[in-house]
Amino acid sequence: MGLVVQKYGGSSVADAEGIKRVAKRIVEAKKNGHQVVVVVSAMGDTTDELIDLAEQVSPMPTGREFDMLLTAGERISMALLAMAIKNLGHEAQSFTGSQAGVITDSVHNKARIIDVTPGRIRTALDEGNIAIVAGFQGVSQDKKDITTLGRGGSDTTAVALAAALDAEVCEIYTDVDGVFTADPRVVKKARKIDWISFEDMLELAASGSKVLLHRCVEYARRYNIPIHVRSSFSGLQGTWVSSEPLVRKQQQGEQKVEQAIISGVAHDTSEAKVTVVGVPDKPGEAAAIFRAIADAQLNIDMVVQNVSAASTGLTDISFTLPKTDGHKAIGSLEKAKAAIGFDSLRYDDQIGKISLVGAGMKTNPGVTASFFEALSDAGVNIELISTSEIRISVVTRADDVPEAVRAVHSAFGLDSESDEAVVYGGTGR
Amino acid sequence: MGLVVQKYGGSSVADAEGIKRVAKRIVEAKKNGHQVVVVVSAMGDTTDELIDLAEQVSPMPTGREFDMLLTAGERISMALLAMAIKNLGHEAQSFTGSQAGVITDSVHNKARIIDVTPGRIRTALDEGNIAIVAGFQGVSQDKKDITTLGRGGSDTTAVALAAALDAEVCEIYTDVDGVFTADPRVVKKARKIDWISFEDMLELAASGSKVLLHRCVEYARRYNIPIHVRSSFSGLQGTWVSSEPLVRKQQQGEQKVEQAIISGVAHDTSEAKVTVVGVPDKPGEAAAIFRAIADAQLNIDMVVQNVSAASTGLTDISFTLPKTDGHKAIGSLEKAKAAIGFDSLRYDDQIGKISLVGAGMKTNPGVTASFFEALSDAGVNIELISTSEIRISVVTRADDVPEAVRAVHSAFGLDSESDEAVVYGGTGR
Repeated sequence: MGLVVQKYGGSSVADAEGIKRVAKRIVEAKKNGHQVVVVVSAMGDTTDELIDLAEQVSPMPTGREFDMLLTAGERISMALLAMAIKNLGHEAQSFTGSQAGVITDSVHNKARIIDVTPGRIRTALDEGNIAIVAGFQGVSQDKKDITTLGRGGSDTTAVALAAALDAEVCEIYTDVDGVFTADPRVVKKARKIDWISFEDMLELAASGSKVLLHRCVEYARRYNIPIHVRSSFSGLQGTWVSSEPLVRKQQQGEQKVEQAIISGVAHDTSEAKVTVVGVPDKPGEAAAIFRAIADAQLNIDMVVQNVSAASTGLTDISFTLPKTDGHKAIGSLEKAKAAIGFDSLRYDDQIGKISLVGAGMKTNPGVTASFFEALSDAGVNIELISTSEIRISVVTRADDVPEAVRAVHSAFGLDSESDEAVVYGGTGR
Repeated sequence: MGLVVQKYGGSSVADAEGIKRVAKRIVEAKKNGHQVVVVVSAMGDTTDELIDLAEQVSPMPTGREFDMLLTAGERISMALLAMAIKNLGHEAQSFTGSQAGVITDSVHNKARIIDVTPGRIRTALDEGNIAIVAGFQGVSQDKKDITTLGRGGSDTTAVALAAALDAEVCEIYTDVDGVFTADPRVVKKARKIDWISFEDMLELAASGSKVLLHRCVEYARRYNIPIHVRSSFSGLQGTWVSSEPLVRKQQQGEQKVEQAIISGVAHDTSEAKVTVVGVPDKPGEAAAIFRAIADAQLNIDMVVQNVSAASTGLTDISFTLPKTDGHKAIGSLEKAKAAIGFDSLRYDDQIGKISLVGAGMKTNPGVTASFFEALSDAGVNIELISTSEIRISVVTRADDVPEAVRAVHSAFGLDSESDEAVVYGGTGR
C-alpha cells in the first residue's frame, strides 16, 4: 500500500459534522495501510465571509494582505480536521502551505507553484502521522510572503503534493459522484464516466466542465499522477483520470479500436463574444489585435476568422473570453483602433458554447456531421465553429444551450438508462 | 520622533467599523512622525467561536492543532487592519508571529517567548511601512510549530517587540481609560492613575487588577520599556507605567518624600482557599505539601502558616489558588496524604482578596493599622493576612469584597471628587 493524497473541498467540511465525517473517511484509508496526506479547503462559506469583511474595510483589498486574510480559512479547517482525527485515536498534524513546502511566485491572489519541498510532510508521515495540508496557499520564493493560488487552488495543491511525494493516486473528494458525460443539472440522463484520459479531461475542463479545473489536470498529466474524482458523501467509485485506464472497463472493451470514443458534452455560458469588424486582410493584423488583448493580461478562448470578402479586402475576427473581462477587452481594442485600423467592434454576452470531446474524432468524419445534425434537429443555430484533434465546439445563443446539450448527448448514445446523476451541494475552492 | 509600538485588543477591533477607527488612530501616529508597529488581537468573539468549533469536533483539543486553529483569529484582524490603513493612503504590511520573529518554547497554548528577531519588521519600517503584527502567537524554536502565548499574550507580544526594537513607548490600547485606583465597576469614585511604577503595577496585577497582566509588566520592567495604557475609544491620556514618571505629576509633588504613596486597591474573587489541617510541625512538611502542588503544575498565590499549638505539635497551612485549579490541588494532596501525614483538607471557594498597593508602606506602620480599621469599620471579618514590601492583602468572605474595597479606597483618600471612571466594553486577549 502506497501513499495517497486526498483533497476535500469546502462543501465536504462545511461544519463540525462534515469535518467528523471526513475524518472517518481519512482514518479508513490509514487503516487500509496507506500513508495519507490530506489537502483541505476552507469551511463552507468562510472565504466569502472573509471577502465580505475585506470589502467593508477597503474597497480595493490589495494582494499581499488579501492573501494573508484568506489563508486564515484553511488554517481553521485543517486544525479542526487534525483534532477530529486525533479524537478517533489516530495521529495527525496540520501544515500551512508554507510549512508543507509549497513554494510559489509572487503574484498575489493567483500565484503559480514553482516548487514543492515537502520535507516536513515526509517526516510527519514517517513518524506515523496523517498529514493535513492547507490547500490554496503557498509562500513566495523571493519575499517569503503568504500567497494564494487562485481558482482551483486546492486541487492544484493536492496534485502538486502527490507529484512531489510520488503518490499512488490523488483523490479529489467533491460533492458529485465524479465527472459526467454532461452537466447532470442540464442532462438528467448524464452518465458518470469511469475513466477518462488526461487529454479528454483537459478538453472538457477547457470547455466548461467544472468538476476539475484545467490547471490541476495539466499538472497531473505533466507528472503522470492518476486522479480519482469522487464524492465525499456517497463513498462510491468515482471517475479515474489518468494516461491509461488502470482497469479496462467493459465500456471500452465493447468499442471497436478505430471507432471514435466520445467522453462527453461540455457547455459554458460564462463567456462573451467580441467581433472585430472590417479588419484589413493583410499580414500582422491578427497579431496586432491579440497583442492588444495580451497586453491587458486577458486570456481568450476561441478565435475564429473567416475568409475575407474578395470585393472589400476586409475580414472579421471573432473571439470569446470570460464575460468578466469583456469591458477590459473592448477598452484595449478601442485604444488600439487607430493603430490596427478596423471598422468597429461588436460585443455579445448572450452566447453559450457547446463542446463534444472524445478521442478519434478527427479520423471519424461522421462525428462532425452527426454533431451538426443533432443541433439542426433541435432547431439550434450555430454562430461560430472551432475544432481540435479531440474536440468540436460551437457557439450558439445562450438560451439554446440546455436543449443543444441534451440533443448532442442523446445523439451520441451517451444517455444512461436511468436518471443516475446525484448532486449533493455547492462546490468548494 | 522614535518608534512606537501600539497594541489593540479584541474589543477595539470587534468589527469593520472598529478596524477603520483603529486604522485612523494608527495613521495619526505615523503622521506625527513616528515609526509605528501595531500588535493586534483577534476580532471580538473570534477566539471564542473557534474554541466552540474545536469542542464540537473533539472533546479534548490538543496543543499543537489548537494553537494552529486559534492563530487564524489574528491573521484575519491583522490583514484587515493593514487593508484599512492602505485605504487611508499609507503603506502597511502584516506579519504573523513567526514572520515577526517571535520565537517561543514548545509549550503549546501557553508558550513563553525565548527570543525576538524582528528583522522583517525592521525592514518593513525602513521601507516606510506601518508594520502590523499578530499578537498572542509565535513559532517554537525547535520544531518550528505555531504556538500561542496564553492569557495576556498580545500585551506580551507588544512589550517584547518594543524591547527588541528599542521602542520609545509601548502603548496598550484597551476599553478603559487606564489603570484606576480600584475597579471602577466596584468603586464609582475610583480615580485614573496618571503614573505608576513597574513595582506597584506588578503588585496590582498580581492582586487582581485586570488591565495589565503581571507577565507583560514583568517583561516591560526587565527591559525598561515604558507602557502607556489608554483607551482606543476616548483618545485621552491614560496611565503611564515606567521606572520613573516621565513627567512629574502635581499629585506626587504635593506628597512628602518619606510618606507612603498609595497606588490603589485591587481585589480578586477568582481564587479559592485550601487549608491543610493538622500538619506535623517539623522541617520538610511544607516542602512536601507544595512539591505535591507543583508536580501538578499548579500556581499558587498566598501562603499562610500560623504558629502551631504547643499542645498538639500540629499546625495548619492555608494557601489560595485559582478556583479552576481547586479540584486538581485537592486531588494531588489527597494522593500525597499518607506521605505528608496531615489530618484533613478544607476547601473554600467563597473567598475574596483585597490588596492595598503602594511604595513606602513598610516604613509607615500607620498604613497597616488604617487598613485594618477601615475593614473593621465596614464590618468585614479578616480570614488571612499576607504582606510584602509594597502590598498588604487580606482574604475575606467573597460577599464582603465590594464593601471592603470601597471602605479602604475611601480611608486612604483615593476617592475622586466626581464619578469619572468610564468603562466601554469587554476585554480582548
